[in-house]
Amino acid sequence: MELEFLGTGAGSPAKFRNVTSVALKLLDENNAIWLFDVGEGTQQQILRTSIRPRKVDKIFITHLHGDHIFGLPGFLSSRSFQGGEAPLTIYGPKGIRDYVRTSLKISDSKLTYALHFVEITEPGVLFSDQNFTVSCQTLDHRITSFGYRIVEKDHVGELQVEQLQALGVRPGPIYGQLKAGKVLTLPDGQTLKGTDFIGPAQKGRIVAILGDTRTTPNSQLLAQDADVLVHESTFAGNEGKMAHNYYHSTSVQAANLAKRAHVQQLLLTHISARYVGKMALNLQNEARAIFPKTRVMKDFDQVKVPLRK
Amino acid sequence: MELEFLGTGAGSPAKFRNVTSVALKLLDENNAIWLFDVGEGTQQQILRTSIRPRKVDKIFITHLHGDHIFGLPGFLSSRSFQGGEAPLTIYGPKGIRDYVRTSLKISDSKLTYALHFVEITEPGVLFSDQNFTVSCQTLDHRITSFGYRIVEKDHVGELQVEQLQALGVRPGPIYGQLKAGKVLTLPDGQTLKGTDFIGPAQKGRIVAILGDTRTTPNSQLLAQDADVLVHESTFAGNEGKMAHNYYHSTSVQAANLAKRAHVQQLLLTHISARYVGKMALNLQNEARAIFPKTRVMKDFDQVKVPLRK
Repeated sequence: MELEFLGTGAGSPAKFRNVTSVALKLLDENNAIWLFDVGEGTQQQILRTSIRPRKVDKIFITHLHGDHIFGLPGFLSSRSFQGGEAPLTIYGPKGIRDYVRTSLKISDSKLTYALHFVEITEPGVLFSDQNFTVSCQTLDHRITSFGYRIVEKDHVGELQVEQLQALGVRPGPIYGQLKAGKVLTLPDGQTLKGTDFIGPAQKGRIVAILGDTRTTPNSQLLAQDADVLVHESTFAGNEGKMAHNYYHSTSVQAANLAKRAHVQQLLLTHISARYVGKMALNLQNEARAIFPKTRVMKDFDQVKVPLRK
Repeated sequence: MELEFLGTGAGSPAKFRNVTSVALKLLDENNAIWLFDVGEGTQQQILRTSIRPRKVDKIFITHLHGDHIFGLPGFLSSRSFQGGEAPLTIYGPKGIRDYVRTSLKISDSKLTYALHFVEITEPGVLFSDQNFTVSCQTLDHRITSFGYRIVEKDHVGELQVEQLQALGVRPGPIYGQLKAGKVLTLPDGQTLKGTDFIGPAQKGRIVAILGDTRTTPNSQLLAQDADVLVHESTFAGNEGKMAHNYYHSTSVQAANLAKRAHVQQLLLTHISARYVGKMALNLQNEARAIFPKTRVMKDFDQVKVPLRK
């Protein structure tokens, strides 16, 4: 489970920050990659990574502003051109289907795979698969904007091999049956209950990825106890009024949310082109004064999401 | 008058060739820049050039395939974001208006300038301004595809200053009146006819920029006697059958056209990602065997269009 930032800029692309897109790589868990927003040029950014478009089977759009969606038709076409055959589902606000369908139709683009849309009508759980549950909440932006919360299911505890060996139980198929929780009677008459030999479950990880937003209580619903919170920081700490007027957040507001919600780490993105080079570090420093585990992301930064100890 | 290639690839972007766009820089002539096609990522390419989006006042779209248009909504939005106020006109096949309007509407993009569309219903002259006439012809592609021919008006000849000085006529406002072709009687009774003192007119330049196409007689109408012909070369010389099946051209077909049409130079673009690095030079070499003044373009190549001697 790893995040890779494909674009960390705001509004318009800048020379060293493309417009928004972040990949959640779930290769070990689901053999899949999910994209959150697909600004123009995302497919070009992907050419400079190890991401294979055919592995992308879900795309989540936070909101319909151009810097978050104008890369979608090109990405979808190229995934097809490169022989992608697995179906792909796009989640997002109402309008995303019309935008994509119109773009593909007018450009005479025929896809080699099935494309599905889930236009979100109300917040809540979007889906659950064997490993993850994804839900969303409405944020506070000029247009409908969503935040997504990805919750991994708890990992079953480890089989307590040392305990079994102390009882004289040798490794073999029996270990698998015990790990599955079965009750077994051994040839020597001993009865073993699988659940007695399984260690504590390991907490699943939580990733919250928010779209553009002002400070809003719903952000905390999404971010609560997350291992990673990805949050916009379009403005600096002293620009709260401007952030409010433009329906955005400051670095300090993001840090306060991270603190309130008890997250493990805060990754700031959607950085305005006004904050070039070291100026972006100011955003990081002012956030760290409130929430030390903060980092301002750059394009192509990769961040592993470790299991908690 | 100068061409700058913003994207020279075909179909999908490659690491070193973005999808199609070429700028015709008319800064000395019209204080303007015209774009021909705007593939995804064109605005990002522009960030690496000296082109200012506000100078772009006309965009010509050859055809509606995604690799030629998916950069339009982003370019138009950023031009607005950067404070562009001058009107902009987009010429192209029917459908271009619906694509752009839908993209801008769904993304809630409001432009700071007037955007006009000319959807081409039949080939011929599109417009004339003080310096240029632009016409188009239909090509032979899977979908409607146009080629554009930009013809510069002839330059008025130079005033023959030496002849005037030999007659004792000193430099002054009179020179301007003679250059304007007026007939003047001097204080000494001498009558001078402006047209007698103006050298031969200098031929205006011709640039032909063709969209994706098979070999077709209309290409020659566009290319005839051009100073520069910009032509696709999606396939190599020995792939004529494949080029035909995919409605494209080979390098050799482009060179034969350049020869037949007596152009001054041939610039090949729309190079497939299959021709990496030196392989693209093979396309150039096989074209040069037929038409020596051929060059395969790379992204960011700039080519001046000189006046003829």
